[in-house]
Amino acid sequence: MSDTSVLDSAVALLDKQTSRRRFLRQSGVAALAAGVATACKAEPKSAAAAQAPHGQTGGTMGAHDTMSGATAASTADAMDAMHEKGIKAFPAKTAGMGNQLLKPRMDNDVKVFELTAKKIHWETEPGHTVEAWAYNDQVPGPQIRVREGDKVRVVLHNQLPESTAVHFHGLELPNDQDGVPFITQPPVKPGQSYTYEFVVPNAGSHMYHSHHNSAKQVGLGLLGAFVVEPKEKGQFDNPDVDEVLILNDGAHGYTFNGKSFPATQPLVAKLGQKLRIRFMNEGMMIHPMHLHGMHMTVIAKDGWPVPAPWKCDTLNVAPGERYDVVVNCNNPGTWAFHCHILPHAESDHGMFGMVTALVVQK
Amino acid sequence: MSDTSVLDSAVALLDKQTSRRRFLRQSGVAALAAGVATACKAEPKSAAAAQAPHGQTGGTMGAHDTMSGATAASTADAMDAMHEKGIKAFPAKTAGMGNQLLKPRMDNDVKVFELTAKKIHWETEPGHTVEAWAYNDQVPGPQIRVREGDKVRVVLHNQLPESTAVHFHGLELPNDQDGVPFITQPPVKPGQSYTYEFVVPNAGSHMYHSHHNSAKQVGLGLLGAFVVEPKEKGQFDNPDVDEVLILNDGAHGYTFNGKSFPATQPLVAKLGQKLRIRFMNEGMMIHPMHLHGMHMTVIAKDGWPVPAPWKCDTLNVAPGERYDVVVNCNNPGTWAFHCHILPHAESDHGMFGMVTALVVQK
Amino acid sequence: MSDTSVLDSAVALLDKQTSRRRFLRQSGVAALAAGVATACKAEPKSAAAAQAPHGQTGGTMGAHDTMSGATAASTADAMDAMHEKGIKAFPAKTAGMGNQLLKPRMDNDVKVFELTAKKIHWETEPGHTVEAWAYNDQVPGPQIRVREGDKVRVVLHNQLPESTAVHFHGLELPNDQDGVPFITQPPVKPGQSYTYEFVVPNAGSHMYHSHHNSAKQVGLGLLGAFVVEPKEKGQFDNPDVDEVLILNDGAHGYTFNGKSFPATQPLVAKLGQKLRIRFMNEGMMIHPMHLHGMHMTVIAKDGWPVPAPWKCDTLNVAPGERYDVVVNCNNPGTWAFHCHILPHAESDHGMFGMVTALVVQK
Repeated sequence: MSDTSVLDSAVALLDKQTSRRRFLRQSGVAALAAGVATACKAEPKSAAAAQAPHGQTGGTMGAHDTMSGATAASTADAMDAMHEKGIKAFPAKTAGMGNQLLKPRMDNDVKVFELTAKKIHWETEPGHTVEAWAYNDQVPGPQIRVREGDKVRVVLHNQLPESTAVHFHGLELPNDQDGVPFITQPPVKPGQSYTYEFVVPNAGSHMYHSHHNSAKQVGLGLLGAFVVEPKEKGQFDNPDVDEVLILNDGAHGYTFNGKSFPATQPLVAKLGQKLRIRFMNEGMMIHPMHLHGMHMTVIAKDGWPVPAPWKCDTLNVAPGERYDVVVNCNNPGTWAFHCHILPHAESDHGMFGMVTALVVQK
Repeated sequence: MSDTSVLDSAVALLDKQTSRRRFLRQSGVAALAAGVATACKAEPKSAAAAQAPHGQTGGTMGAHDTMSGATAASTADAMDAMHEKGIKAFPAKTAGMGNQLLKPRMDNDVKVFELTAKKIHWETEPGHTVEAWAYNDQVPGPQIRVREGDKVRVVLHNQLPESTAVHFHGLELPNDQDGVPFITQPPVKPGQSYTYEFVVPNAGSHMYHSHHNSAKQVGLGLLGAFVVEPKEKGQFDNPDVDEVLILNDGAHGYTFNGKSFPATQPLVAKLGQKLRIRFMNEGMMIHPMHLHGMHMTVIAKDGWPVPAPWKCDTLNVAPGERYDVVVNCNNPGTWAFHCHILPHAESDHGMFGMVTALVVQK
Repeated sequence: MSDTSVLDSAVALLDKQTSRRRFLRQSGVAALAAGVATACKAEPKSAAAAQAPHGQTGGTMGAHDTMSGATAASTADAMDAMHEKGIKAFPAKTAGMGNQLLKPRMDNDVKVFELTAKKIHWETEPGHTVEAWAYNDQVPGPQIRVREGDKVRVVLHNQLPESTAVHFHGLELPNDQDGVPFITQPPVKPGQSYTYEFVVPNAGSHMYHSHHNSAKQVGLGLLGAFVVEPKEKGQFDNPDVDEVLILNDGAHGYTFNGKSFPATQPLVAKLGQKLRIRFMNEGMMIHPMHLHGMHMTVIAKDGWPVPAPWKCDTLNVAPGERYDVVVNCNNPGTWAFHCHILPHAESDHGMFGMVTALVVQK
C-alpha cells in the first residue's frame, strides 16, 4: 500500500468523527509532509567535524571499532527508511476505534448507559491483532460524559468467561455502587447483567474499569473514561478542543487510547486555540508525557482543580492518576508528543507505541 | 478454620490495641459483611447483552474462542470462591505486628529508645513466613513518636551477622548523628551497640532505617517510622485518627506495615472524623495509592507542609518519600484502599499484597 | 594505588575547574576523613542487646540460623572493608569529564556552538570503560548555557555510524528547529553536518539530546544540559553555587553526570551559601533523589517557576523531567546524596552508581 493510500485511508477513518475534526486532520497530515520537505538543510560536510572544539576528553575509538564509511551509510539508510516508513504511515488505519462518545438513552430524567463486556479481537497497529476484553467492542471502552448532578444508570452485561464488576474510579459514590466484588457487591457472573445507579457526585476526569481479577481484566481492556462536567464552569472549562488520552502498557503493548504508533490519533488544534488534554493512566507503569514545542499547564489532578496551576513540558502520570492540562496552541506545526521513557516510544526499527503528534494549524 | 473464627481471631489480635480501636474494628468487620449481603442486586439476564449499543467495532471473537456457558460458569465460580475467601479472611491473623508505638524510657529529660536489630522469622500473611532483619522483632520496626525540640537518645544493639547503622531519614541532624558508615560514623559491628543522641530539629513524618548494605538490610526489614509532632500545632495536627502506612516491596513481597493482604490492617474512622494518613515508601518501586469513596487532601511532603494543600484519590509515593494526607470521612462503608499498580494488588487468585480497607462507620 | 594518591589524583583532576572550587573540594575531602575519625563512638556491648524492650514479637530465629560470632565478625569485617574502600576512593579519578561548559564562538551577535557526535570509550568508574556515543567526547555532552533572547547557532557534525539529530528538550522553538527526523527535518546522515539556529525563547533548565533511534542513542550518551538564564532575574537566580545533575540509568549503568560512585563529583558549598541544583533525568527510570542533612526547596519544574516553592528531602525525578531546587547550606559536614531506590546506590560490595555527597564547609 502506498503512503498516499495509507493516508487517504487514515483520513477516511477519521471521517467518522466530526467534520471540523476531519478538516483539521487532513490539514494536519499535509502539514506534516510539508514540514519535512521545507526543513531540509542537511549538507555533507565531513571535514567540519575535525574542527569541533574538544575539552578534556575520553578516548576516541580507534578505526577498527568503526564501520567503513560506505557500510555505515548503507546501514544508516536502511534504518532511516524503516523510521521514515513508520512516520509516513501515521495516522495509520486499523480496525476499531476506542473511546467513542457513548450517547445515553433517557429513561425519564435518568441517563442510561449500557456496557457489554466481552472478548474481541483488537488491532493495535496495522497487522497486529490481539485478544482484548472490551466494553462495547472498544478499547478503551466508550467514553461516558455526563454532568455533575446528573442521574446516571449504567447497565453492565457480562459476556466474558469470568465474573466481573465495574468500579467508577474517582467518583465518590455510595458504597454499594463502588463495584468491588465481595466488599460492595457480588461478582457479576458470566451471562448476568448488573445495574449501577447514582447521582453523579463530583466533577472531573475519572475512569471506569473492572475491579474483579483486575490485573488481568483491566490489562486486557476493560476500562474507559468517565468525564464529569462541572455544574459551574471554571476558567478552563471552555477549551476549544477537549481530548482524553488514556495511557496503557499491558497485554496490548504501549498504547494511547488503545492504539500504538503509527495507529495512534493525532491531536489537532488551530493556532491560538486552547487544547485541554485529560491524561488517564490505566497501565502498570509511569508514563512521563513529553510535549514538544509548547508547555502544558496542569489544572487538575484526579479531577480536582489544583490550587495553583503549574507549567511543565513533561508530565509524569502514574497508574490510576489523571491530570488535566491546558495547552495554549501558539506554536504552529506538527509536534511530537510521546512518553519520555524512550523504550516505550522508539526502537532500532523506528517510533512505535506511545507516540502521537499535536498538530497546530495556522 | 471457618470465616467466623478467622474474624474472631483477627479481632482478638486487634484487642491488643486500644479499646476505642477495638470497638471500631469489630464494627468495621461487621459492616463489611453486611455491605456484601445488602448490595446483592445481580440478576441473570443474558438476553440483555445482545441489546447493548455498539459503535464502530473490532472483530467479535468467534464461538470457537469462547468456553461453553457451563464451563465458563464453573470456572468463574471457582475463581470467585478464591477471591471471596481472601476477602472474607480480612483482616487475617498472623504472628507479629509491626509499627507498634515504642514508649521511651526517661533519663532525666532525655527520651531513650532502645533498638535491637536481629534476624527473625516474620509472617507476612497467614502461613507465609519469611526471614526478616528487624528492630525489636517487628517489621516495620517500632514507631518512634516524639515532639520537635525533644532530647532523644537512640541506642542501637546489633545482633545481626553484618555491621549496620541507623539513618534518621528526614531529620536535619548534626552530621555525626546521620548514620552513614565511613562518612559520618564507623559501622556498628555484630555484637556492638551504638548511641545516637540529638535534639529533634524538625517536625514531620520521617523514617529511620539502616544505611549500611542498605539495599539488603532495609529490604529485609530494618526500617521504621519516626514521627515528630510540631511544637506549634497547625490546622491538621489534631486529626481524630492518625495512622502510619509504610509501603514496601522487597524480599517480603508487597506489604503495608509489613503485612500482605488479607493480613493487612484496616484503617477505621467514624463518620465525620478526620483521618490523617502518613504514607512512607521504604521499597524500590513507586506505589500510587488509590482510596475509594473519598479523596485525600495532601498536607505535607517529606514532613514539610505543602504551601497549598491539594486533592487527589491516587497518590504516587516514590521510594524514600513521605506524604501526609487528611481524609474527611464523610462517606460511610468499607472502602478498598490499594496500590493502583494492579499486579501489586490482585491476581487470578484474588486480592493480595498492597490492599487494605478504610472503614467509615456510621 | 593508595587512598592518599587516589585522593591526590582526584583533587588534581578537580584542579581543572576554577580555583574556588578546587579549594572547596580539597577541604571537603579533608572534612570527610575528619568526620569519620571524630564520630567514632562504637563500643562492644553485646549484653545490652538482651535488655532491649520487645512488644508483641515474631519468632526469633534459633541459634542454628545464625553464624557463630567469630564467623560473623570476620564476614562483617570483610564486607565493611569493601564498603570503606569505595567511600575512601571518593571522588575517584577517571578519564574524561562530562558537562563541561562549552564556550561559544561569536559570529557577529550569534553564539555558535559546535557539537560533534561520535563513538568513544568512556570510563564511568575506575577501571570500568564502556562504549559511548558522545558529543564532543563527553558524557553528558558539554553544557550549553545562554541567556533568554540570545541568538544561538548549534552546528551538529555526525561522525556516528547511524543518522542522528538534536532535539532541544524544553525549548519552545520554531517547528523546523525541533530536531525530529521525518517530522521536522531529515535525519543527519553519517558524515553530514546540520545547522540549527534560533533565538532562545524561554528560560530554564533544559536539555539537548538525540531524537533519532533515541532509546539507543540517548542511552549511549548523546545528551547534555541546555541552561537558559532568564532576562530578568528572580529571587533564586543568584545562587552562590549552581550545579547541573544529570541522572542516567542506561547502557552505562546508574550515573550522575556520566559517572558512577566513587567517580561521581561531590557538590561543594560553604556554610550559609545557597546551592541551586538542576536535576535532569535522561534515563528510563524514576530516581527519587534524597539529600541528607538539609531539605531542598523546589523552585522550578521543567524550567518553569513553580507557583509556590515547596520543600522536600526526596525528590522524585522521572525521565525527561527537570527540577530546580535551592538548598540553604546551613548544616556543615559531608552529606550523602543519592537515589533512594537503594539497588541504584548500594550492594553487598558497597555504595556504587547513583551516590555522591554534598560537602558544606565551615
